[in-house]
Amino acid sequence: MRPFLDKDFLLSTETAKKLYHEIAEQLPILDYHCHLDPREIYEDRRFENITQVWLGGDHYKWRLMRSFGIEEKYITGDATDREKFQAWAETLALAVGNPLYHWTHLELKNYFGFEGPLTPENAEAVWTLCNAQLAKPEFSARNLLLRSKVEVICTTDDPADSLKWHRKLAGDDKTSPACRGGGPASRPVEGSIPSEAAAFPVKVLPSYRPDKALGLEKPDYLDYLARLGGPQSFRALVDALKDRLDYFVSLGCRVSDHGLAAVPFAPAAEDLVEHIFQNRLAGVLPSALEEKQFKTALLVELGRAYHAKGVVMQLHFGVIRDLSKRVYRRLGPDAGIDSIGDQASISELAAFLNALDETGQLPKTVLYSLNPNDNTAVETVMGAFQTGEARGKLQHGSAWWFNDHKRGMQAQLESLAAEGHLATFVGMLTDSRSFLSCARHEYFRRILCDLLGAWVENGEYPDDKALLTRIVRGVCYDNAGAYFGF
Amino acid sequence: MRPFLDKDFLLSTETAKKLYHEIAEQLPILDYHCHLDPREIYEDRRFENITQVWLGGDHYKWRLMRSFGIEEKYITGDATDREKFQAWAETLALAVGNPLYHWTHLELKNYFGFEGPLTPENAEAVWTLCNAQLAKPEFSARNLLLRSKVEVICTTDDPADSLKWHRKLAGDDKTSPACRGGGPASRPVEGSIPSEAAAFPVKVLPSYRPDKALGLEKPDYLDYLARLGGPQSFRALVDALKDRLDYFVSLGCRVSDHGLAAVPFAPAAEDLVEHIFQNRLAGVLPSALEEKQFKTALLVELGRAYHAKGVVMQLHFGVIRDLSKRVYRRLGPDAGIDSIGDQASISELAAFLNALDETGQLPKTVLYSLNPNDNTAVETVMGAFQTGEARGKLQHGSAWWFNDHKRGMQAQLESLAAEGHLATFVGMLTDSRSFLSCARHEYFRRILCDLLGAWVENGEYPDDKALLTRIVRGVCYDNAGAYFGF
Amino acid sequence: MRPFLDKDFLLSTETAKKLYHEIAEQLPILDYHCHLDPREIYEDRRFENITQVWLGGDHYKWRLMRSFGIEEKYITGDATDREKFQAWAETLALAVGNPLYHWTHLELKNYFGFEGPLTPENAEAVWTLCNAQLAKPEFSARNLLLRSKVEVICTTDDPADSLKWHRKLAGDDKTSPACRGGGPASRPVEGSIPSEAAAFPVKVLPSYRPDKALGLEKPDYLDYLARLGGPQSFRALVDALKDRLDYFVSLGCRVSDHGLAAVPFAPAAEDLVEHIFQNRLAGVLPSALEEKQFKTALLVELGRAYHAKGVVMQLHFGVIRDLSKRVYRRLGPDAGIDSIGDQASISELAAFLNALDETGQLPKTVLYSLNPNDNTAVETVMGAFQTGEARGKLQHGSAWWFNDHKRGMQAQLESLAAEGHLATFVGMLTDSRSFLSCARHEYFRRILCDLLGAWVENGEYPDDKALLTRIVRGVCYDNAGAYFGF
Repeated sequence: MRPFLDKDFLLSTETAKKLYHEIAEQLPILDYHCHLDPREIYEDRRFENITQVWLGGDHYKWRLMRSFGIEEKYITGDATDREKFQAWAETLALAVGNPLYHWTHLELKNYFGFEGPLTPENAEAVWTLCNAQLAKPEFSARNLLLRSKVEVICTTDDPADSLKWHRKLAGDDKTSPACRGGGPASRPVEGSIPSEAAAFPVKVLPSYRPDKALGLEKPDYLDYLARLGGPQSFRALVDALKDRLDYFVSLGCRVSDHGLAAVPFAPAAEDLVEHIFQNRLAGVLPSALEEKQFKTALLVELGRAYHAKGVVMQLHFGVIRDLSKRVYRRLGPDAGIDSIGDQASISELAAFLNALDETGQLPKTVLYSLNPNDNTAVETVMGAFQTGEARGKLQHGSAWWFNDHKRGMQAQLESLAAEGHLATFVGMLTDSRSFLSCARHEYFRRILCDLLGAWVENGEYPDDKALLTRIVRGVCYDNAGAYFGF
Repeated sequence: MRPFLDKDFLLSTETAKKLYHEIAEQLPILDYHCHLDPREIYEDRRFENITQVWLGGDHYKWRLMRSFGIEEKYITGDATDREKFQAWAETLALAVGNPLYHWTHLELKNYFGFEGPLTPENAEAVWTLCNAQLAKPEFSARNLLLRSKVEVICTTDDPADSLKWHRKLAGDDKTSPACRGGGPASRPVEGSIPSEAAAFPVKVLPSYRPDKALGLEKPDYLDYLARLGGPQSFRALVDALKDRLDYFVSLGCRVSDHGLAAVPFAPAAEDLVEHIFQNRLAGVLPSALEEKQFKTALLVELGRAYHAKGVVMQLHFGVIRDLSKRVYRRLGPDAGIDSIGDQASISELAAFLNALDETGQLPKTVLYSLNPNDNTAVETVMGAFQTGEARGKLQHGSAWWFNDHKRGMQAQLESLAAEGHLATFVGMLTDSRSFLSCARHEYFRRILCDLLGAWVENGEYPDDKALLTRIVRGVCYDNAGAYFGF
Repeated sequence: MRPFLDKDFLLSTETAKKLYHEIAEQLPILDYHCHLDPREIYEDRRFENITQVWLGGDHYKWRLMRSFGIEEKYITGDATDREKFQAWAETLALAVGNPLYHWTHLELKNYFGFEGPLTPENAEAVWTLCNAQLAKPEFSARNLLLRSKVEVICTTDDPADSLKWHRKLAGDDKTSPACRGGGPASRPVEGSIPSEAAAFPVKVLPSYRPDKALGLEKPDYLDYLARLGGPQSFRALVDALKDRLDYFVSLGCRVSDHGLAAVPFAPAAEDLVEHIFQNRLAGVLPSALEEKQFKTALLVELGRAYHAKGVVMQLHFGVIRDLSKRVYRRLGPDAGIDSIGDQASISELAAFLNALDETGQLPKTVLYSLNPNDNTAVETVMGAFQTGEARGKLQHGSAWWFNDHKRGMQAQLESLAAEGHLATFVGMLTDSRSFLSCARHEYFRRILCDLLGAWVENGEYPDDKALLTRIVRGVCYDNAGAYFGF
């Protein structure tokens, strides 16, 4: 029997322990895709209590609480923060086999120094402990990132965004609020910032996510176009988006992102696409086919622009959003009411990639399907477009959202190893809105090392320290740096 | 090397053994979905020989025998029962990795006290042993249930059914055949009934399964309507079905059931639905779209009625039935010629649930897809509709039919734990026509305890007896009681 | 820690070791589906260097090299063979978890006696070692097969093929080049041929693969018809194909094969099919529906012919081919640019099989879907059509192409065991163009024995030597012999 969440958590073999503690654990973090708010980083936000940090916007937790039968009052309603924390403790204590059980306890241990499991009985003590610590300077937004050894963060931004906070973070370090490093933490954490105020050393880079520009069918599409300068033709729209991409790149943007139900492919002549766009300008909504034709055309143009600028293209697909209209009306998007979808077409994905590849304009691309059934097929599609242009030019993104747990990560790693070349993988990202979520990098690294250790100890790969070090360093840190060009 | 099928069968860790033997093994059974015949229970049916029990209607076994190349004569044909038993023994002996290998041997051990594996060589001895025991009173239908510590059985019944046998079982215990408990069994079994005749203490409740009312496209649909009193409009049909539901509820019905190729969602105005129904009354068969519109409308009405009555809605989907027309013509339905289907649409399932949720009329719902690829997506859809109305208001039903084996159960449990809240799960059901099939509850409980034990011993969940006891008791017994309201 | 690739590679339990070393390892090979060139066998081809053997046409390796970022020059381009070998060594050394890591090292060990891992550092030494050995007579095409204890090979041939080389191999052993067995190998290998010249004892049988006859939509379809004698009607086409099948059978053909995106089922009256065919003769290409109707009709006719002749039907489906048009234009088909597809319809597969079953003309059939998501559904479809005609009349083919790795094989075996009857399985095939690929039979046998050993040692199946021997012998050798009628 191994104790719960000890230092060798998830590390089943001696080799796994060595790989993790001697290599993976030491490496900084390149978080190439997340949803942190650059303003909160710039302003170095502080948190009043642990409910704010954990339950303020974390729809993963909301879902688990609803599944456990907690009333909405104690989730997103008007109960007190202390009451909500109690409801969370009740939900969590029995959540065996759920990734939130692990994430929550890793966060309690790493940031707050609390090692035992959270239960309804000790919730009061944990509440007091966490809140006392949150009052300290080392729990500010910036210091939480520094304590996690984060070197780069790529936020997620709309092309029309002014990137004001990124500019402030990049250009005006001296005028930005000084990093409020204070006295020693109750439990010193490696990598925390020195006690004197200093410039903020973490690169906070914008990512280019033009979902709204692709949302031709949305009622507020024309309002959005106005934010882009009101392009009057499809070509003008493309040009406006390219201008914005140039601007993003000038501020260090290395990666774009797209959230799609499915990667579309319905090629159409440009005059037809123009006609669809002109109709939309005139208030005529597109048919389903027209919508797809428009999105195909624009996504191909964007892909070419990414290739020209050396910007990586991320494609997230396989989602159905906002299922419960009742909840959506009350809470809006990101309310814990999304699901895995089954609309993705492998043939269309392949045809879309070919449309870019055929002219030599396929950018580096990271594919994420929310549907785990797509894993193997997506990896084989990737394999058909790999070239010497880069190691792992096409990437299968780390197990995403509903798959971001031990089994999901193992499945993605094993499948990628079998169908592709695991050692080229750019590894983990948090995809998170929370400043505590770097614990997920630790979770991923433990799972990776455990898998490698099992292969080595089972005689499936040699016990060669130099090779294993290259693989672990590569997947945890080096590959992302080289791939994105940080 | 662990011996075959010993007392720690499938229990790999000490924690698993404790959880099973100290908790799970002791708990009674709430079999909330099965296909037992209430008449056979009322009449306390006896079985002449083991072939009647095992091969009379068990199409799982028929399929395995056909796969092994056994001639149909020895499966459903005119060979003697002894010859059929021999053919089964030949088939089974080599069926490594098949759940029937485990179920059969659990039944031999638990009910007949035979511990060794069945082989062609010892088939004669096993035949004699089993048949001698079947002649004893403790092998009657009722006593088999009592020996398995069954407390509740939900049978599967058509709305037009008179529920005569349920009424007799419920209201007329004293006039029903006395329970024929006799002398001591050759191997006393805990939970068997006392030797004096007594009222039958197992609740035998009807379940409401209106598949025929939904079968608009079937040639005999009008005959079926006549059985419902001949409703002359869609609204009258809905009312007739609600009346029958009231009647079922008055006899203790707590749960409904639907067998569907896919959960349909094609909303239509009621006058269109009425038009489709009127056409059918006039002998005009529906188009595929009309069929879907009708089924959507009726299923939504039924869902609302279940919600109003506090009746749980079960949806079984992802099946293709009666594939071999040649066999179907000879044997009819349930002949071992069905398969997993790939027609289920996750988007339509989500939209159907939303149609009920939007008006606050979504009943407690248990979703079963026969296609294991749907597991994760179905669980994420469920998560979007969970509310404080009940713990685990939406449930992912236990691994069903072709998935009802060790790997399938493990996959469902692990996936449910990761995407939902395992501790709220209502657990196992037999879905069976056989009075011996409660062995499957044991199978499930062992697999559950093994999974929990592995997590605990691997440091992934604390070794906390109180919490683990709540989880095991909950999934094996308590949750179903609370959820269905037995 | 177990050493890399020792004699107990992949054998985790004592039972697994016994089953492998005492039974599986000893058995000859019946390679019932491969793509070896009968001319190369007849002419007893020799290889100049290891790059020719490994990288000449092996698109599995090309893909892995591209994924690792190797320039095309070093894959299919004009780099020297030595340079390509170095690029391969660099790619392979880090390819943890990839089946090519295991296949390559099994081949190095079994054929060349090299036991250590191949690395960039020792590539020069391995290059020299391999090439020196390839110069020896025991490395000729025929001797490589003999050293692997191959008894039967089924090649893959077009119906229009003259089968010249098969005839030479079958009828004219004495006039064929003598088998060039020479002096003792540097490391004697069991099963290698005696040093004196002898007749070639391996049966090299043709397989009937009429993909081109089904390719109505292809631009060169009329040219292909000319090769079949220019049939002027659909019925004449069927007759021509049946004639060719008779000819193939006369030369020992026991098995057919079809490569399909999906198994089609769109039944149509024969005059409509004839109309579609006449249009094609007149240069009019079919619509998508017409193409499907034609393929359905022809595939049903072929299935009936296979049944009449006792020829097994293999159906390979679930593929998208030639994704990168850019690479296709340079390298043609089989260039490592294919992927798993998601077009297969389980309902259509079932309906197609039923169309043959309904008239009692369903041949023995082996189903291979490239999409691993189809595994369980395909197995349940098979189960619906099993009959006493043969043990395992319908077979789920061994994990194919992108699934041909440890996890893929385990998944196929476990799933087949749970849904069908594993002991009737016809087992492994190489599906390969390489004379070294019989190492994959070893790989499969180790994985099979490991799975059986785990079940036995976990108490899930009795430790019964006689039964286990029947299962292992059956799956590795006996079943294929009986099933195909070699």
